[in-house]
Amino acid sequence: MRDKRSGGPPQPVTRRAFWSRSGALLMAGALPGAAQSAVDPELPESMRVQGRPVLSPPYGQPSVHEADVVRSVFPGTPTALSAASLTPLHRLHGIVTPNGLVFERHHAGVPDIAPERHRLLVHGMVERPLLLTMDDLLRLPAVSRFHFLECSGNTQLEWKRPAETVQRSHGLLSCCEWTGVPLSTVLDEVDVAPGAAWLLAEGADAAAMTRSIPLEKAFDDALLVYAQNGEMLRPEQGYPLRLLLPGFEGNANVKWLHRIKLAREPFMTREETSKYTDLMPDGTARQFTFMMEAKSVIVRPAGGQKLRGPGVYEIFGFAWSGRGRIRRVDVSLDGGRTWEIARLDQPVLPKCLTAFRMSWQWNGAPLVVQSRAVDDTGYVQPTRDELMAVRGANSYYHYNAIHGWKIGIDGAVTHARA
Amino acid sequence: MRDKRSGGPPQPVTRRAFWSRSGALLMAGALPGAAQSAVDPELPESMRVQGRPVLSPPYGQPSVHEADVVRSVFPGTPTALSAASLTPLHRLHGIVTPNGLVFERHHAGVPDIAPERHRLLVHGMVERPLLLTMDDLLRLPAVSRFHFLECSGNTQLEWKRPAETVQRSHGLLSCCEWTGVPLSTVLDEVDVAPGAAWLLAEGADAAAMTRSIPLEKAFDDALLVYAQNGEMLRPEQGYPLRLLLPGFEGNANVKWLHRIKLAREPFMTREETSKYTDLMPDGTARQFTFMMEAKSVIVRPAGGQKLRGPGVYEIFGFAWSGRGRIRRVDVSLDGGRTWEIARLDQPVLPKCLTAFRMSWQWNGAPLVVQSRAVDDTGYVQPTRDELMAVRGANSYYHYNAIHGWKIGIDGAVTHARA
Repeated sequence: MRDKRSGGPPQPVTRRAFWSRSGALLMAGALPGAAQSAVDPELPESMRVQGRPVLSPPYGQPSVHEADVVRSVFPGTPTALSAASLTPLHRLHGIVTPNGLVFERHHAGVPDIAPERHRLLVHGMVERPLLLTMDDLLRLPAVSRFHFLECSGNTQLEWKRPAETVQRSHGLLSCCEWTGVPLSTVLDEVDVAPGAAWLLAEGADAAAMTRSIPLEKAFDDALLVYAQNGEMLRPEQGYPLRLLLPGFEGNANVKWLHRIKLAREPFMTREETSKYTDLMPDGTARQFTFMMEAKSVIVRPAGGQKLRGPGVYEIFGFAWSGRGRIRRVDVSLDGGRTWEIARLDQPVLPKCLTAFRMSWQWNGAPLVVQSRAVDDTGYVQPTRDELMAVRGANSYYHYNAIHGWKIGIDGAVTHARA
Repeated sequence: MRDKRSGGPPQPVTRRAFWSRSGALLMAGALPGAAQSAVDPELPESMRVQGRPVLSPPYGQPSVHEADVVRSVFPGTPTALSAASLTPLHRLHGIVTPNGLVFERHHAGVPDIAPERHRLLVHGMVERPLLLTMDDLLRLPAVSRFHFLECSGNTQLEWKRPAETVQRSHGLLSCCEWTGVPLSTVLDEVDVAPGAAWLLAEGADAAAMTRSIPLEKAFDDALLVYAQNGEMLRPEQGYPLRLLLPGFEGNANVKWLHRIKLAREPFMTREETSKYTDLMPDGTARQFTFMMEAKSVIVRPAGGQKLRGPGVYEIFGFAWSGRGRIRRVDVSLDGGRTWEIARLDQPVLPKCLTAFRMSWQWNGAPLVVQSRAVDDTGYVQPTRDELMAVRGANSYYHYNAIHGWKIGIDGAVTHARA
């Protein structure tokens, strides 16, 4: 039964199929001793020796058996300072990205900032400029919210050639519980001058990362963030303070934030003129394309993995939208001809990763698996053809087309266009 | 204004009060240069030198400036193997406890288990015993859910004498996103024999930790968990497999789970006879008191901290209930005479930590701050007198009374009963 390859259409699996088809089921009597006695006569080694003491170490670390679950450097990075590292999405299991695995993007390395010396200056078109210490910020009314963070350059390789693994193609994506002060709280206090419509956010890194942000977003849901996943920000995430603009491209979420200046017009910094713009087919460029549109990707099975023969698997992936909640994720097992609705882990939160799952019985025949996100504005993740029809082939940022993996007859998983 | 101590009743603060009373506000002209020029003439050191490269290290670590945010050993622990370590709740900022800070409780140390050699045996009063590998389990339909985990011995010191810090009193408490297979999925398959009503869960540690669990809970929301906060379980949390019983006392959530045996009656193991029972005033003992009732604690300000003089602070704490969602958290600033409703971070999830917050203006007068949780069954966290009236003074586990901190005239925070 396990090696039979049916020619029929692939279909989602019922729960029962796992047990009847997988090699996991051992009937009574087939168990070597264990099922008959109250205690397994062959005790595992871990039950024969005492284990490690508590606090080894005081700040805990992953198992040595998980040593390969790490970030990897972004391919083609010119230097290790102006560089990026990628989250191993194929090894994640929920919407929280552990802080040690959150992707990095730095333009001049990770600065070391002592929190007691850090200041946030708010000035420009305001009635009362402010200079805030971290202690000041920690005393203000705060809030924690779960949001994804994605570099607009995520999946940039997809415009041209397919990436081999999902860490390579989609790894500039993470999701955390962020804690901080609503930026509106501080803006309400400085008394924004009439006519001000933009702010400049500047980082205290050696690149002086600067982006112009519409005040409308600043008053909406922007946060001055000092903590992620319950603890203070990691150095590479902007310790001790960063801007968080839920749903906006990663680069605009300025890290090591030390200055906010209000003005009438955007500041036209390097990061919004020569970079982070989208070249359109007619030769013009879209600027200030902050919004990360709805997108999804299957992370298991994914490129570089190999299925161990026909049987039951769980398809697992992430969907997200900068505009709000994910309403639905569809999965296709036949290259986009038909679609099934995937299960979503709860809670489904706005501007947050949503995990989707589908049990699936692989009959051994080659196929293409794909996922398609729909958000609560009704936006449907486009096909590659639909995306290229609007954006052309010369873009670099904001690729969000439906992505697929091809599973070969040997179980090897490769990019659907490879 | 900042040093004025009013004799009036303490009250929650309005947002405006922070700015008018704190020392944070610098008016235009009072800023040394920075407000007048586009770039601060005294650039911080971090903007003058390149920072660290990416992947330093590949699995990231907290800032060196947060080196004191670690677990600490439980006071009175007889050995480092049968021991516990405590989560630094006073340094947390959201409902996710970072994996490195999740509290520990081991009875024979932390075993090292290679996942490829680990097995889960399901046997006893079942029609078809099962022996599952980790690969088998990872193929089954899974789910991720956020749940708190609390040792029933948490706040045990409170029965007698007050603990000095919140890490000491309440640190056997953490909260994670857990991922795994519903236990009901596996139980459905083994075909439970008529009359079976309990299961034994056994860990593969040298203590062979064993607890009896009602089948009703197993079929309700129990999970066979292999991941926490997006990555595989930490060794001290049961790598590669643990039982998770949302809302039940920590000890029953057996780690390094390798055996489940079904039976008609509970197994009366050491951990449910000589330990983990509650001695009542009449000399009898309550057994199998799994449920963690509604509870809350303020973690900032908390014992061992010192307020830096009158001004605005944010009161921050956690509330939770093993029975469901937190409906409301009340905060008292006058030792329990009057109560205000705290703000709750969203989402408020069942059997999960809920973060509550209240802005507060300290006028410099001594006072007692307290919190009180109400869950969606209508259960109200009891006062110490109410709890003692039912439970007496000889209990060890399941203390969940309202907890308070006293703030002295010098800003020093101590236990309300100290």
